[in-house]
Amino acid sequence: MLVSLMMIPQINSLMAQNETIKTIHNRKSVRNYTDQPVKTEDLVTLVKAGMAAPSGMDRRPWEFYILQDRGQMEALAQQLPYAKMVANAQAAIIVLGNPDVSSYWYLDCSAATQNILLAAESMGLGAVWTAAYPYEDRMSAIIKTLNIPEPYKPLVLIPIGYPTGSDKPKDKWNEAKVHINGW
Amino acid sequence: MLVSLMMIPQINSLMAQNETIKTIHNRKSVRNYTDQPVKTEDLVTLVKAGMAAPSGMDRRPWEFYILQDRGQMEALAQQLPYAKMVANAQAAIIVLGNPDVSSYWYLDCSAATQNILLAAESMGLGAVWTAAYPYEDRMSAIIKTLNIPEPYKPLVLIPIGYPTGSDKPKDKWNEAKVHINGW
Repeated sequence: MLVSLMMIPQINSLMAQNETIKTIHNRKSVRNYTDQPVKTEDLVTLVKAGMAAPSGMDRRPWEFYILQDRGQMEALAQQLPYAKMVANAQAAIIVLGNPDVSSYWYLDCSAATQNILLAAESMGLGAVWTAAYPYEDRMSAIIKTLNIPEPYKPLVLIPIGYPTGSDKPKDKWNEAKVHINGW
Repeated sequence: MLVSLMMIPQINSLMAQNETIKTIHNRKSVRNYTDQPVKTEDLVTLVKAGMAAPSGMDRRPWEFYILQDRGQMEALAQQLPYAKMVANAQAAIIVLGNPDVSSYWYLDCSAATQNILLAAESMGLGAVWTAAYPYEDRMSAIIKTLNIPEPYKPLVLIPIGYPTGSDKPKDKWNEAKVHINGW
């Protein structure tokens, strides 16, 4: 640690003018949604953001499932304890990978998921990463409920809706996790 | 596929006013850098963006190494064929995970990496994801060159510099990869 990391004022001043940095820090796991519907075209905008992610060897081993069917959302909520808020969401996006296209599809799909979460925050929407991969039971529940064909694997189910305002971003900054020119 | 996806005008109009969506689509893998130095405080801003990512069970299994040592950057360029542009970069950020904190550290660290890439784009910097994990030889080269202690594993080495302008974003939109309420 060769330089001081006491640079919060600099970061705050950058955040005040850089909308992307602001979105990155304002993004939060939103688990509580209002009844306001989410337009299909806005969900497509989120998927388009996901598909702009980088991927290893530019293989793009991803697929995106937009779910708006209330019955299927409730069926998934019952089977997925960590995603039960999807029953109260307006929609969900499932990001899936094709292991035949890339063995490391889950890394590329994680980058795509982060793009979707940030795009949602920037549009005033709330979203949350609920993990499917690497849990076999969760992946299987999604595959069966949505009739996903082989060989696709769900990485994540992202419930989406307009936030009630009760979920807040966390300040996770921890200087001890930064190593400058030496561990 | 129940609705038309011909919504490019809507997306373009959103991109024109939403800086985050614009950054997501303008992000590119930048492999060519000018000689302009990158300030340490800007590298710390990138790391702060990385640390704002979500993580499974909020475990935050990540560490960030800021590398500015020219000799070590050249040593890494020689050992890592897919990261040889780091010899011409001004700095690099290595995102590492702690497998003892989370078995799925590489998913959380992928989200953190995507935050860093987007923050860099938004600040006029160029960066590129060069994979370390899951390649044992690449991880070992980084661990040995930078004296990384156990049990940390490098996911990615991100060369950083100001772009020459020769690297362009790709339009990866592919309607066939979107499934709306049915595969």
